[in-house]
Amino acid sequence: MIFLDAAATTPVRREVLEAMWPFLTGDFGNPSSHHTLGESAATALADARSSVAGSLGCRPGEVIFTSGGTEADNLAVKGIALARQAADPSRNRVVISAVEHPAVEESARYLERFHGFTVDVVPVDGQGLVTPQALRSLLRPETALVSIMYANNEVGTLQSIADLAAAAAGLGIPFHTDAVQAAGWLPLDTAALGVDALSLSGHKLGAPKGCGVLYVKGRTRLEPLLHGGGQERGRRSGTENVAGAVGLAAALALAAASQREQAARVTALRDTFIRAVLAGVPNAVLTGHPEQRLPSVASFCFPGTSGESVLLELERQGVVCSSGSACAAGSDEPSAVLTAMGIPREVAQTAVRFSFSPTVTAGELDAAGRAVAAAVAGVRSLGAG
Amino acid sequence: MIFLDAAATTPVRREVLEAMWPFLTGDFGNPSSHHTLGESAATALADARSSVAGSLGCRPGEVIFTSGGTEADNLAVKGIALARQAADPSRNRVVISAVEHPAVEESARYLERFHGFTVDVVPVDGQGLVTPQALRSLLRPETALVSIMYANNEVGTLQSIADLAAAAAGLGIPFHTDAVQAAGWLPLDTAALGVDALSLSGHKLGAPKGCGVLYVKGRTRLEPLLHGGGQERGRRSGTENVAGAVGLAAALALAAASQREQAARVTALRDTFIRAVLAGVPNAVLTGHPEQRLPSVASFCFPGTSGESVLLELERQGVVCSSGSACAAGSDEPSAVLTAMGIPREVAQTAVRFSFSPTVTAGELDAAGRAVAAAVAGVRSLGAG
Repeated sequence: MIFLDAAATTPVRREVLEAMWPFLTGDFGNPSSHHTLGESAATALADARSSVAGSLGCRPGEVIFTSGGTEADNLAVKGIALARQAADPSRNRVVISAVEHPAVEESARYLERFHGFTVDVVPVDGQGLVTPQALRSLLRPETALVSIMYANNEVGTLQSIADLAAAAAGLGIPFHTDAVQAAGWLPLDTAALGVDALSLSGHKLGAPKGCGVLYVKGRTRLEPLLHGGGQERGRRSGTENVAGAVGLAAALALAAASQREQAARVTALRDTFIRAVLAGVPNAVLTGHPEQRLPSVASFCFPGTSGESVLLELERQGVVCSSGSACAAGSDEPSAVLTAMGIPREVAQTAVRFSFSPTVTAGELDAAGRAVAAAVAGVRSLGAG
Repeated sequence: MIFLDAAATTPVRREVLEAMWPFLTGDFGNPSSHHTLGESAATALADARSSVAGSLGCRPGEVIFTSGGTEADNLAVKGIALARQAADPSRNRVVISAVEHPAVEESARYLERFHGFTVDVVPVDGQGLVTPQALRSLLRPETALVSIMYANNEVGTLQSIADLAAAAAGLGIPFHTDAVQAAGWLPLDTAALGVDALSLSGHKLGAPKGCGVLYVKGRTRLEPLLHGGGQERGRRSGTENVAGAVGLAAALALAAASQREQAARVTALRDTFIRAVLAGVPNAVLTGHPEQRLPSVASFCFPGTSGESVLLELERQGVVCSSGSACAAGSDEPSAVLTAMGIPREVAQTAVRFSFSPTVTAGELDAAGRAVAAAVAGVRSLGAG
């Protein structure tokens, strides 16, 4: 099997599982307990927090461990917006982009339904980019928060986060970015990015499912999403997933250590793959930005097919990929990301996303490129579109 | 070390880790992905859900996997109350008991602060019991939800959940119970209990930290806490922690298989331990109900000491326990649970909780009983109270 669906999830790295192991076995304390066993867990959690802080260029106290990327996004969007609204009721607007992950978009819609917020949606251009000008035109004194993703999960387009964050910062508006897909491939230095909040997911970068991180800058006020025992300095209650936090920290450190060279290597492989697909499949369309994109994502539309039939044919040939985000798999609706980019609905329904792990090889992508050409030709010849 | 703090957390059982192993290694798919790897994860998740449903006597569609007990409590309290208020704005009161875990209490306070709810608190008697009469006197047409815990985490008192739930059901009010401490020791048949929602935590019963369950009955409306990709039938978004869900299901099934005999065995050991402590420590006070209590919890106040100094002395003698809930460890405030039971603040500050795992032995408790007598005598002789 050639696994080209790494944007959906990744296996736990061996080193990560080894780092987690003690906390899944003998070292099982509750970090809140004031005895040796608890203190050992608390120390492991503190070490994981420091390690993550090192990877993000922030202070340990700015790292909140969550149950995953979705919780981190929900906590950022709802938590910051609600805290700002509580401090100043006129702060009742949030700005998101037209291509956000549902975890951000639906959090904004929740604010609209339950807390009287207005959601302003910044459009993207045909390559999926938000421009600072477009963002600026939506910022108002009432804007409580801006949330724009770092790298898009369906087409891989990278936003110019530093520029966008600077536009918000100029007006004193907190800026959150969903960096779930960017992690492992792009720099995550929060100071250089200029963001006030940043979300990560463990299982996208070799840690297990069920752990994530929200970075929240310094004194940014945050209404918790999970209330209770007051863990994570009162910002996220619930007994900490110690093994998950340790695993996430290990995965992030491993990724950071080899990020630059892996990104360069995989970018070159990606571009070769894109050329092969565009050459081998008549009328194939690359979606997203041609250069400003994740090293790990090559996404296309294949007009005259259905994405699903191409996927089935590819899987038959041993190539596993997806139509877009795993969250929306099986939906009949065309991707909102693609239609926001101006792609017609009938074309958007033919989308196929190939996403690579850091260990992908030239041989795999060579074989995959040939399989794609054959699969699309086969589907088209059957009129299965 | 004699570990008598099982109410804080438990080690992952070997069989549980073995059940989880495939999903921490090769079988790493995202259950939302529509290919073989995803479908394998989806099948494992469905099997775990069916298994949990079997343990709870409910349908699989009524089981929501969460990141833990705190999230389950938050989702139940906020989710049900907000959905009912959205359907009928006059439903703006919630009833909780005076001895709830902070995950329930703080969720209710959030509803008060952000959604205009009034929180009605049912008092408990000197043994920590809520009476159906006391509950009934607080129920009104505006009550959106009642949340009363099954077993108290600090003193082990068991509520008569079926009677309390029946009182609420008589007025058509949904009833939630936090069963985090009860799980593994008491029957969890949701139909027999008559509850509409029930929370569980994995790490209290031999599954890892970071997984939990919320049972929500049939058509009970629920506003999600985590919005996004629509996992868990739209009630809890976020990529599912497959390994955690599988582990929780395995732990619950293992506990259920031996629950009755273990509860009987540990109850007998507990009572012997209680008698030994009351005999060995002058003026020791058992807190909570003398019989209607968790098999696994023996809790005391030792007037003339401080709980913390007794704990330190006990740990020096190799006995690990706690002052009460792990969440509140290290707090200077006396326990709200104990003061709600009418225990004076200065006595409440001398609380020590011993909580047992299913594998506790008579020899361990015999040694612990002697250590307690010696520790309290030592602390008292030093005037360290």
